[in-house]
Amino acid sequence: MTATSTKADRRAAICDAVFELLGEVGYDRMTMDAVAARARASKATIYRGWPSKPELVMEAVEHRYGGAAQPPDTGSLRGDLFAQLTAVCAAACGPDGAVFTGLLTAATHHAELAEVMYRCAYSTKHGMYESMLERAAARGEVPPGTSADLLHEVLHAMVTSRRMWQSGPLDEEFVERLVDGVLMPILQRG
Amino acid sequence: MTATSTKADRRAAICDAVFELLGEVGYDRMTMDAVAARARASKATIYRGWPSKPELVMEAVEHRYGGAAQPPDTGSLRGDLFAQLTAVCAAACGPDGAVFTGLLTAATHHAELAEVMYRCAYSTKHGMYESMLERAAARGEVPPGTSADLLHEVLHAMVTSRRMWQSGPLDEEFVERLVDGVLMPILQRG
Repeated sequence: MTATSTKADRRAAICDAVFELLGEVGYDRMTMDAVAARARASKATIYRGWPSKPELVMEAVEHRYGGAAQPPDTGSLRGDLFAQLTAVCAAACGPDGAVFTGLLTAATHHAELAEVMYRCAYSTKHGMYESMLERAAARGEVPPGTSADLLHEVLHAMVTSRRMWQSGPLDEEFVERLVDGVLMPILQRG
Repeated sequence: MTATSTKADRRAAICDAVFELLGEVGYDRMTMDAVAARARASKATIYRGWPSKPELVMEAVEHRYGGAAQPPDTGSLRGDLFAQLTAVCAAACGPDGAVFTGLLTAATHHAELAEVMYRCAYSTKHGMYESMLERAAARGEVPPGTSADLLHEVLHAMVTSRRMWQSGPLDEEFVERLVDGVLMPILQRG
């Protein structure tokens, strides 16, 4: 194992420990020392790399969710929306969905944390929706140049709001209602 | 002053104290004793009426937001949506908006608190959207019997999500984009 891969492995182990602890005790009660213990790292390593808890949490969020993702390509806009929304709902229902929900409150007191969360949960995913709509435009399903902004904002808002307010299941019926009752009418209007 | 009004006044003072403290220190750090002190009530009064913190908070939310509200009546669906959404955004930007945001995390560990919040922020307001659409249907702006469910869920999700994620201002441009780009197309489709 090279020195580089060891360093990357250690970073990954620390980020995993952060997500585990956020899920177990929440942001307020998570300590840097507990992260060190969970990741089997020395406290010196932790404090040298990330001097404060917000920085450590931001690093973990960035590490796990900072990358772009591949959009589904099913051959139709409706099929792509179904596949994408089903994946988003599955992620929101998983353990990381609860971590994000908990972090949103912490983020109201940390502007930088709020920015990182928004970038990782939203901005870096925007290109997926743009690709989806470019392909749909090429197939004549939407007008050329249709913006992905509204599609993305509405989809993200509907899923996170239902998750936050616990107002209903993120199931197949929800996906169908959102695709056929909201997203397709928005995209195909006028 | 009658005994009844005194009792109602005391209840109102206690509920106001709960909202003030939730805004200042948040749910986790708010204590029943601090509520008693702020409301100039005896601890015995507080504990006799509300044996636990979740019960006290639920009472305050119910007291302030449990009632129905009058929908705007501007003469057109678009005008009503503008007026209503402007009012919702103003409330979300005010101090109680921050309190609700903070309580959502506490509610993930308290199913009853989650239910009360959802009822007060959503269910009791549903009739407003139904009246709005009934009037719009009578004017021929939407098909008769158009359900208010999607309209209400999308509007609520877009405002609370933007508030939670601090992803953009709840300003006039947002209201216009939501009314003309999302809500009207959903309601007038097919």
